[in-house]
Amino acid sequence: MDAIEENSFILVYRDRRRKWIVRPSETPRLHTHLGVLDCEALVGKSFGITVKTSLNDELVILRPTIEDMILKLSRRTQVVYPKDLGMMMVKCGIHSGSRVIESGTGSGATTAMLAYLVMPEGHVYSYEVREEFQETARKNLERLGLQKFVTLRLGDAKEGFEEEEVDAGILDIGDPWEAVASFQKSLRPSGVISVITPTTNQAERLVEKMREAGFVGIETMEIMMRYLEARSGMTRPSNIMIGHTAYLTFGRKTVHEK
Amino acid sequence: MDAIEENSFILVYRDRRRKWIVRPSETPRLHTHLGVLDCEALVGKSFGITVKTSLNDELVILRPTIEDMILKLSRRTQVVYPKDLGMMMVKCGIHSGSRVIESGTGSGATTAMLAYLVMPEGHVYSYEVREEFQETARKNLERLGLQKFVTLRLGDAKEGFEEEEVDAGILDIGDPWEAVASFQKSLRPSGVISVITPTTNQAERLVEKMREAGFVGIETMEIMMRYLEARSGMTRPSNIMIGHTAYLTFGRKTVHEK
Amino acid sequence: MDAIEENSFILVYRDRRRKWIVRPSETPRLHTHLGVLDCEALVGKSFGITVKTSLNDELVILRPTIEDMILKLSRRTQVVYPKDLGMMMVKCGIHSGSRVIESGTGSGATTAMLAYLVMPEGHVYSYEVREEFQETARKNLERLGLQKFVTLRLGDAKEGFEEEEVDAGILDIGDPWEAVASFQKSLRPSGVISVITPTTNQAERLVEKMREAGFVGIETMEIMMRYLEARSGMTRPSNIMIGHTAYLTFGRKTVHEK
Amino acid sequence: MDAIEENSFILVYRDRRRKWIVRPSETPRLHTHLGVLDCEALVGKSFGITVKTSLNDELVILRPTIEDMILKLSRRTQVVYPKDLGMMMVKCGIHSGSRVIESGTGSGATTAMLAYLVMPEGHVYSYEVREEFQETARKNLERLGLQKFVTLRLGDAKEGFEEEEVDAGILDIGDPWEAVASFQKSLRPSGVISVITPTTNQAERLVEKMREAGFVGIETMEIMMRYLEARSGMTRPSNIMIGHTAYLTFGRKTVHEK
Repeated sequence: MDAIEENSFILVYRDRRRKWIVRPSETPRLHTHLGVLDCEALVGKSFGITVKTSLNDELVILRPTIEDMILKLSRRTQVVYPKDLGMMMVKCGIHSGSRVIESGTGSGATTAMLAYLVMPEGHVYSYEVREEFQETARKNLERLGLQKFVTLRLGDAKEGFEEEEVDAGILDIGDPWEAVASFQKSLRPSGVISVITPTTNQAERLVEKMREAGFVGIETMEIMMRYLEARSGMTRPSNIMIGHTAYLTFGRKTVHEK
Repeated sequence: MDAIEENSFILVYRDRRRKWIVRPSETPRLHTHLGVLDCEALVGKSFGITVKTSLNDELVILRPTIEDMILKLSRRTQVVYPKDLGMMMVKCGIHSGSRVIESGTGSGATTAMLAYLVMPEGHVYSYEVREEFQETARKNLERLGLQKFVTLRLGDAKEGFEEEEVDAGILDIGDPWEAVASFQKSLRPSGVISVITPTTNQAERLVEKMREAGFVGIETMEIMMRYLEARSGMTRPSNIMIGHTAYLTFGRKTVHEK
Repeated sequence: MDAIEENSFILVYRDRRRKWIVRPSETPRLHTHLGVLDCEALVGKSFGITVKTSLNDELVILRPTIEDMILKLSRRTQVVYPKDLGMMMVKCGIHSGSRVIESGTGSGATTAMLAYLVMPEGHVYSYEVREEFQETARKNLERLGLQKFVTLRLGDAKEGFEEEEVDAGILDIGDPWEAVASFQKSLRPSGVISVITPTTNQAERLVEKMREAGFVGIETMEIMMRYLEARSGMTRPSNIMIGHTAYLTFGRKTVHEK
Repeated sequence: MDAIEENSFILVYRDRRRKWIVRPSETPRLHTHLGVLDCEALVGKSFGITVKTSLNDELVILRPTIEDMILKLSRRTQVVYPKDLGMMMVKCGIHSGSRVIESGTGSGATTAMLAYLVMPEGHVYSYEVREEFQETARKNLERLGLQKFVTLRLGDAKEGFEEEEVDAGILDIGDPWEAVASFQKSLRPSGVISVITPTTNQAERLVEKMREAGFVGIETMEIMMRYLEARSGMTRPSNIMIGHTAYLTFGRKTVHEK
């Protein structure tokens, strides 16, 4: 049995839009519009059970996934969407042992996903120029127990990175073309960078700079996700859809033969 | 320096459509319509260099990513696309240490991706009913050096799995609803299954069965990917696009409180 | 000059979301959250001018297009979207002189569009089983001055139509397969039907019935529309998008040679 | 009965990809890879019949729609797609009696669609700078019997149009921003222009110019169309899809009050 502990994060789940992440130690009683849930009483029980609120409403208690966790992190900056994050991880080949540079840290949501994938042997070096963002990210990473796989650095990507021969780079800043040279220097040959840009103009300018810097395999794409409401005899795509989040650009570092 | 060895896989790259994966030990000389490439002569050099063919055409030598590798695996079965694979990995939270059941193995492409993510501490248990597919998958996994993270089992998902308390399930067979009960039994509570179905009818029938079996957080979606041709002053979406690969359905196991 | 008259419909336009359609004769003064607009004072002036409200806010006075008009009609039933309507008109080849059967009438929005296109020589025969809908449609058509190009019939499509040899059929009811035989009978050979169905199950069942009835050139499609926010140096697709409205199915009537 | 005549265009239809448009008078015998079809023998028979080729293959004889006709026109220039054309017609409110300026004429495909919709009372004024295109368009329009509803003019949109107070403008040239002032001058107040641009950069530059020229209701969009393969028990979106054709930009003319 996978038992709930005092300090476990628990996902209190009703449906896609009504869900909460809490810890029994911090939130002994969770107040929702569906009634009050006694979280303390859950300790020692199994994840996956259905419980009732004070209003007799049913909620399911789940162990949160990494996706649940990062979607709940501080929204002071925009969180990268799972549809985009998944493609970035596959394209960069990030896995246990990978060494990755990220710029910028933002609220630490992508940082957390990276740490989760590179642990226990790999490491994430995350650069951020705004101290208050870094502070938020540090708290988020500590809360998730992922801080030991991350080095948070206060610094500007365009001034270069301290690391060398890293496997991959994740770039999510407003002027990513300014950081291309720094990644070209710090990536291992064949290393992949993955860049997030909301506008076509940014993608255009970025790709031009990446070509100049000798990156190859450059490709820009957008990922669209639409729910299908699969219901017996009345299946249809959801009429709600996010039209656009960002373009993703990928490229691989090349070197001049000596 | 990241040096090319005799047995390294090398990605010989010209552009998105013209690329090859070979090993110098197996393919000392690569014959292409762009001329002959002397692969033996690359040994000891750095990845990331540009070299010339006998016809003086330029090619870049890259270390292949896991995406490059799995897209080159035997196509006797359909390979899951990166856009779909990425979302599946995020939704299931697969990372180092995860224990995953897959059904069916197919050519082993998804299996390889799973092994790559769960290594070194996790494990993939992959079920397949057709012996010849399993054989192909075994060869592919051995070639990639990933076989030690995978147990290939000859068996039918609907008859149940030997494993218990696994973290996630990946289901890619024609009648996935038949395997729902087996996953409900072998997943740990809160464990996620990720199911691939090309048709709306399959998704419909599957979702119904998952609801009956007590899965929650059930959602079906499709992921669409379109390239953006980002070029200075003439940026436009690619007019080539894959319209559909498959629907992805996710759900989480719940349990009855004892 | 295209002068505003007492009875002209005028589109009072601020932006995509803030716009009103009124007549000076009916609404001498238009009260909005942007202030009051003196519509009476507009009579005799040119369409296309910019005027000020009592709060000094600027509004543009435009002659509404047929699209503006039908999007403002009674919403007791769902209005067909312009993206879908446009494709239907092209596929059916509807133009001046066409004779078209529609089922059901609904609020008369599609009916109005059809009347607008077939006038002055063509005609629309629109069937509806619910009297209150027909009444709403009648008022809408009269208001638009299009009633003389439409015959509203109270009747069920599955019981057949009074007309023969019509050029096209527009079908927007919950069980369209029940009306296929009626259209097969009333269309001229080669005549096109255009059917709107929200779900995949409806499309599936419909297509099967159309094949059985001898229709050819059967194709089902979905039309997706996304805004591009084109702005100097910061162009990006809109993040708001309607995910799904309905599937459109088209087919052409064939006959047995006598 | 709708009888086939010597000079009728007939659509010889097998499926979405195998179809031909011919006239019995011009092509008495149609040679296809499915066998020879005796077109002369069809004269006097009804449209909508199924006939056999010399190889005993079945083909359906249909009266072509306007969509069939324009998709078969000379491909020396890119034909506007039905999905885009339909939206343009709805947004511009083009119907019988409309007076429309088009620039440029190209092969005359859009011109033909416009003529088809504005006839018999309306008119299309179509400008083109390249004489050979105009010649092709003239032949296409004559062949379709639509030439009397069109005036073909040899001239550059940026130098202005001869017409005034037209209802709508259709703009499909490489540098549409250069023609904005001409349309602002020749449209009636509230008149709509519809502009086709393949790239985001063109849309961006165009929209800026339209704003400067006083157009309102400016919106840019893209229309995506995907087939659904609706088949009993195995319905799925088509995996073939056109990723992009062009962005459509619309705007309405305003005037300064005198």
